[in-house]
Amino acid sequence: MRIALGLEYDGTSFCGWQTQPSGCAVQDHLQAALARFVGSPVEIIAAGRTDAGVHAAAQVIHFDSPVKREPHAWVRGTNTSLDDAARVLWSAEVPGDFHARYSARSRTYRYLLVDAPVAPAVLRHRAGWHHQALDIEAMREAATVLLGAHDFSSFRDAQCQAKSPVRDLLEARVERWNGLVRFTFRANAFLHHMVRNVVGSLVYVGAGRQPVAWMAELLAARDRRLAAPTFSPDGLYLAAVEYDPALALPAFPPHPLLDFPSR
Amino acid sequence: MRIALGLEYDGTSFCGWQTQPSGCAVQDHLQAALARFVGSPVEIIAAGRTDAGVHAAAQVIHFDSPVKREPHAWVRGTNTSLDDAARVLWSAEVPGDFHARYSARSRTYRYLLVDAPVAPAVLRHRAGWHHQALDIEAMREAATVLLGAHDFSSFRDAQCQAKSPVRDLLEARVERWNGLVRFTFRANAFLHHMVRNVVGSLVYVGAGRQPVAWMAELLAARDRRLAAPTFSPDGLYLAAVEYDPALALPAFPPHPLLDFPSR
Repeated sequence: MRIALGLEYDGTSFCGWQTQPSGCAVQDHLQAALARFVGSPVEIIAAGRTDAGVHAAAQVIHFDSPVKREPHAWVRGTNTSLDDAARVLWSAEVPGDFHARYSARSRTYRYLLVDAPVAPAVLRHRAGWHHQALDIEAMREAATVLLGAHDFSSFRDAQCQAKSPVRDLLEARVERWNGLVRFTFRANAFLHHMVRNVVGSLVYVGAGRQPVAWMAELLAARDRRLAAPTFSPDGLYLAAVEYDPALALPAFPPHPLLDFPSR
Repeated sequence: MRIALGLEYDGTSFCGWQTQPSGCAVQDHLQAALARFVGSPVEIIAAGRTDAGVHAAAQVIHFDSPVKREPHAWVRGTNTSLDDAARVLWSAEVPGDFHARYSARSRTYRYLLVDAPVAPAVLRHRAGWHHQALDIEAMREAATVLLGAHDFSSFRDAQCQAKSPVRDLLEARVERWNGLVRFTFRANAFLHHMVRNVVGSLVYVGAGRQPVAWMAELLAARDRRLAAPTFSPDGLYLAAVEYDPALALPAFPPHPLLDFPSR
């Protein structure tokens, strides 16, 4: 039967989502823990293949299990042998045609950023940093230009393997959040490094290095060489994945860093 | 001249505040960074000697400097060679009789705790964990018993070197906070492990393992063997140190994890 799991992880501890020969990826750790629990090798597919250093508050994965277990048993059994930088939060039996990646209707990423003279210590690796206060209004205005279906080539990594550079950006928010800057992006899907490239360019606007109108020029140019450098992975979180509500997948609890108290 | 510095650090990366032969303590790292900056050995004194794994959002230290530097130069010059798990946030020249520890009028510690079936991943080592929902009202009621000047022997570690077990607890708060439980304790000073021992016993009350009235019995018994085990250092933060306002020390910015948005 096909099982879906909901997952939280601290990306600092892993070399990204996708399996590596050295076994340092979240996928490697989770596959090893599941294999120990079911007694045979397991291959898993994730909704979002996060880069090294990128976190997940709400990653969703699926795999086909040769054995039947109670939902709470999947959670406890897997967590028992999983590195504590990753935790399974829920499990659900799903239809055989459910696919964590292809069935996803949208993904939401959030980026937390400290804009202050001194970098954060307790939240280092958990929030990005810019050394001066950013203009939220300017970044908000610049971000709205990106809403809708566009060719996002200017924000696409050279390594990106997607067939099309067109993505439909459904939400783009910039706000003050518990003394941090919080960016929220929801899209049908994202190109490789797209959020970090967009955040980097928005920070240029917020710092006054580029005018608000620059964002529209960047988007129209479809040229990666014009945008700002890829921003640090430190503050990036996969924050939600949306599926057909008829699947009735369990909800993730709101995350203390990302979601409280305004949601 | 005497200099005071304000400091934030992630306690996970160090073996506690106090200097160790191996050089793994926050004090060792900061003394080394300061010595590099001023060109001669520096000995520092802190307001609170935090245990291994305990964090600080607002530690205050002092030292005597053989050289004069601008306030922002102390911040940048020290941070340049300091482990990034600790950051100097401000500096100030203080009178020669200022003492980070003895001039402090009160200290505030906060404890963040996740009370949910699965332990936190992104906030692991930054919040404590109890596997089930805790009764906030019961813990709040139990905590108020501790307010005022008492002999806190029941919550004092066997290793504690303080001459007297009497401390004046000025504030004891328990509340829901961004989906976490947040404990706040302010006292003239604290005994060794006092906050972690009080939190451990309050968790017993919140989990229904002991009644609210147990806290008064514990306090009256003055016997460490009766209280709950010392709770994990993971969620403990030195959150504020209060001095004579006439000193006009720089303020710490509110901390995203501890202080927003209610302060």
